Amino acid sequence: MKIAIYGYGNLGRGVECAIQNNKDMELFGVFSRRDPKNVKTLTGAPVYPASDVLSYKEEINVMIICGGSATDLPRQTPELAKYFNVVDSFDTHADIPKHFAAVDKSAKESSHTAIISCGWDPGMFSINRVYMESILPDGSTYTFWGKGVSQGHSDAVRRIPGVLDARQYTVPVPEAVERVRNGENPELTTRMKHTMECFVVAEEGADKAAIEQAIKTMPKYFDEYDTTVTFISMEEMKEKHSALPHGGSVIRSGRTGLEKECGHTIEYSLKLDSNPQFTSSVLVCCARAIWKKSGQGVTGCLTMLDLAPADLSPMSGEELRAHCL
Amino acid sequence: MKIAIYGYGNLGRGVECAIQNNKDMELFGVFSRRDPKNVKTLTGAPVYPASDVLSYKEEINVMIICGGSATDLPRQTPELAKYFNVVDSFDTHADIPKHFAAVDKSAKESSHTAIISCGWDPGMFSINRVYMESILPDGSTYTFWGKGVSQGHSDAVRRIPGVLDARQYTVPVPEAVERVRNGENPELTTRMKHTMECFVVAEEGADKAAIEQAIKTMPKYFDEYDTTVTFISMEEMKEKHSALPHGGSVIRSGRTGLEKECGHTIEYSLKLDSNPQFTSSVLVCCARAIWKKSGQGVTGCLTMLDLAPADLSPMSGEELRAHCL
Repeated sequence: MKIAIYGYGNLGRGVECAIQNNKDMELFGVFSRRDPKNVKTLTGAPVYPASDVLSYKEEINVMIICGGSATDLPRQTPELAKYFNVVDSFDTHADIPKHFAAVDKSAKESSHTAIISCGWDPGMFSINRVYMESILPDGSTYTFWGKGVSQGHSDAVRRIPGVLDARQYTVPVPEAVERVRNGENPELTTRMKHTMECFVVAEEGADKAAIEQAIKTMPKYFDEYDTTVTFISMEEMKEKHSALPHGGSVIRSGRTGLEKECGHTIEYSLKLDSNPQFTSSVLVCCARAIWKKSGQGVTGCLTMLDLAPADLSPMSGEELRAHCL
Repeated sequence: MKIAIYGYGNLGRGVECAIQNNKDMELFGVFSRRDPKNVKTLTGAPVYPASDVLSYKEEINVMIICGGSATDLPRQTPELAKYFNVVDSFDTHADIPKHFAAVDKSAKESSHTAIISCGWDPGMFSINRVYMESILPDGSTYTFWGKGVSQGHSDAVRRIPGVLDARQYTVPVPEAVERVRNGENPELTTRMKHTMECFVVAEEGADKAAIEQAIKTMPKYFDEYDTTVTFISMEEMKEKHSALPHGGSVIRSGRTGLEKECGHTIEYSLKLDSNPQFTSSVLVCCARAIWKKSGQGVTGCLTMLDLAPADLSPMSGEELRAHCL
């Protein structure tokens, strides 16, 4: 199948690499809003101007849209779904129903197949929440994120006057994770679940105490957490904090039995060297699934909750039953 | 939907309890080969003779077959699929393709929907293997079982002359699990992955050294493992070893990036107080999925690899997108 990439940032580059790992796929090329002359792809894949995308609609089986959730995807996915089978990683949880409705309408009207919110949260974590809650209806589900970089939080710190660069890590509180793993079903406040670590490069002569105070009291981002702020040099920032690791766990513990006498714990965990690389690997196998669904005559918008594991795999049902079941 | 149970052992009792946790289901009753007068159900559900099962075929939406994989299910599932939508937990991995073919033929001919090999391995572990391998094609998958009781191994020990009762636990080797979690992709022999612990009640005057030797050298069951044998009293056996805990982990580590510079680890783990209780909880949500599939006109045999997470859930697509995605 022929895949194209729309938007060439960290995620687009991740998709470009991930396609190389999948023999049943071929990268048609990259669409960018920048001048193609100034975009050099990692693998030498061709670059086309985003404005020309409709000229290639007969040649592309699935378009993976690699824009941001804040402003790009709400416009791009419904628009491109008029002409292509599309995949995106829309991750603003609260706005998913609205985005779904827009993409569904557009894909249904044009008889295309779309899937939104692919990745790990939303994505693999969501899938696991549904499996866990379906199997153990009587229980509690917990999600822990990290240790990992949140780009939104890092950006928020960078906007504070006197800050040259910043990196924020979300860190799960080990005692909270242990209590959940032990099936204690604890009540956990935001502060009890995660701590925040910030590494900041300050301008020369900046008021570091004021910066630290501004971070720790920032509403929505930091005020509900215990936050540590460490000032470092630009060299240390580049050397130790240029990667984008992430991960986390979804854990459910629940009870079964006539008198609820049996406890069970299910845990799904990720430890990722690179958040965008892993997310793109999920996007690529969702592209395969969407191409299969399109071939089966399914149109409109789906999410990963609507795909069977077999849909994501390059193996046949027979191979899967023999080797993976 | 109305569910019936065929076969009333540990698994059947687990299904009976699990149905109580699911408000969209009702237990029609239990079919047993024993005289119904001698079968007392946990919840007071009615018991019918297995030989009368066809009289009730209009009243039952899905039949959950709770027999054993060795001799019951290969006969029962294809036979009952002629008259019912059926669910089983067939777990002899090597024979799954053959069992699938028999059930598929029977269900297709009668326009019923069947699902085999539901549970956790095969089942949730299989699902996770497929997700992991689809997302990270370049990597290695490892399965660890335990700590938990293997009923097959316990039975094998009980057949040794001089043994009154026995319980065997499979225990994963912590160092092996750690190496896999760290993404080392180690080559692990059978002996390096698990150890075996046996607790044995011997007849008075039995040759304990001979029993220990017979266990440790038993082909297929113990000879490839480091095994410890501990002789205990019948009282201790009843007090400390009457539960059937189990669990385990599926772990895949894989690499992405142009130069494979990023490593990622995915782990799915279960810690279960009761293996049959958890397996039955999976069977029950598979029954829901099969009833939905039957309503969509799907016929023939499926496995959990063919079901989407949404199929297993009592929630609508809209609810799932709003609450779980």
